[in-house]
Amino acid sequence: MALELYWGSGSPYSWRVQLALEYKQLAYESRLLQFSMQEHKSPQMLRMNPRGRVPVLREGDFVVFESLACLLYLDRKYPEPPLFGRTPEEAATIMRVICEYQSYAESHLMQIVSAAFFETIDERAEEVTRATHIVAGEARTIEARLSGSDWLVGDQVSAADLVVFPGIMLLLRAMEKREAGDLRSRFLPLETTYPAISRWIRRVAALPGYERTYPPHWRDGAPRG
Amino acid sequence: MALELYWGSGSPYSWRVQLALEYKQLAYESRLLQFSMQEHKSPQMLRMNPRGRVPVLREGDFVVFESLACLLYLDRKYPEPPLFGRTPEEAATIMRVICEYQSYAESHLMQIVSAAFFETIDERAEEVTRATHIVAGEARTIEARLSGSDWLVGDQVSAADLVVFPGIMLLLRAMEKREAGDLRSRFLPLETTYPAISRWIRRVAALPGYERTYPPHWRDGAPRG
Repeated sequence: MALELYWGSGSPYSWRVQLALEYKQLAYESRLLQFSMQEHKSPQMLRMNPRGRVPVLREGDFVVFESLACLLYLDRKYPEPPLFGRTPEEAATIMRVICEYQSYAESHLMQIVSAAFFETIDERAEEVTRATHIVAGEARTIEARLSGSDWLVGDQVSAADLVVFPGIMLLLRAMEKREAGDLRSRFLPLETTYPAISRWIRRVAALPGYERTYPPHWRDGAPRG
Repeated sequence: MALELYWGSGSPYSWRVQLALEYKQLAYESRLLQFSMQEHKSPQMLRMNPRGRVPVLREGDFVVFESLACLLYLDRKYPEPPLFGRTPEEAATIMRVICEYQSYAESHLMQIVSAAFFETIDERAEEVTRATHIVAGEARTIEARLSGSDWLVGDQVSAADLVVFPGIMLLLRAMEKREAGDLRSRFLPLETTYPAISRWIRRVAALPGYERTYPPHWRDGAPRG
């Protein structure tokens, strides 16, 4: 009963689970769905996840979706190396950092990303300015954590790294759009604005199997426009 | 080294952790903070959680905040009875239901609650109508789960119940405001609109120690106005 991952290229939620599978060196069947073909909304996919979202992870008869739930499943089923720490204290801090990212940064980050990709930064100027202010503040907190440590929590890769990394990568890609304009200088060049985050990105990118997780359509170059 | 919980009356996030402590029958020191006095923003509290939010859980030198992280800490440190299941599959499904609540229901539920408490339902009519539509849909999904089972996941209380319950209780309390007006009939009487959720609430309220978790200021009667 092989693990099967249904995912979409560029979905930060999918990327988390891909990174987890690679980090744990698990064999899995990769099922890349084409968003443009609405393959994630096919009857087969809706039977597994009625919300029609990815990632969806299947192992035999068992199906789980929602990226954090997929990470917890993999960690409980295949504990080594751990994604949620070795002690209650580590587990708690890892989950705390994940919750903080999700509660205070993620929705604002996604607002910026979507405004850049859908080219609505001008018409949503006020909202984007506010989101940028918040995301920059949260990025400084992350920068501070990474200034004293290779990984977000403790001295090993954890679920916190895998949850936050794809979001930051997506933001950086959005900044490559011409649409990003002045916003770009708030985040880029990353080596200058957030040097510890920049080094951490290179560290994640050097993990074994990382290349297999990189969004395939991103290899075709910068986003259009 | 006793467990200490810093919490606020009526905070649904605090309530989750109180329910967990009681469910696990753990001794803890209850530190009720007065929101009206800004006690959650005191220098002592900001040293533990720079975001100035509750709940904050402390055990000896270790501090954790963000309710889901507190639940995971308690479950890893005091595994019986489990909050995140006994198998990888149970853990995954519990986390999935939590993530679904947080991703698709919670922010909309809180919009309705805040519009009712701050008496802005009329001026935010469009937003509240949309939020109500979404919350009612998510409530139907929860109703369906509870129609076939006593608890949200599996046949035991889990973290999923403890995460969702306080949010629903807060929504029901908001519906007691005169301000709620026509909105009230979308949710109340709960025994008619969502009978399985109504029975589940009675089940949670019958858990040992529940009375100690009930928001003290709610005992003074319905919210004003």
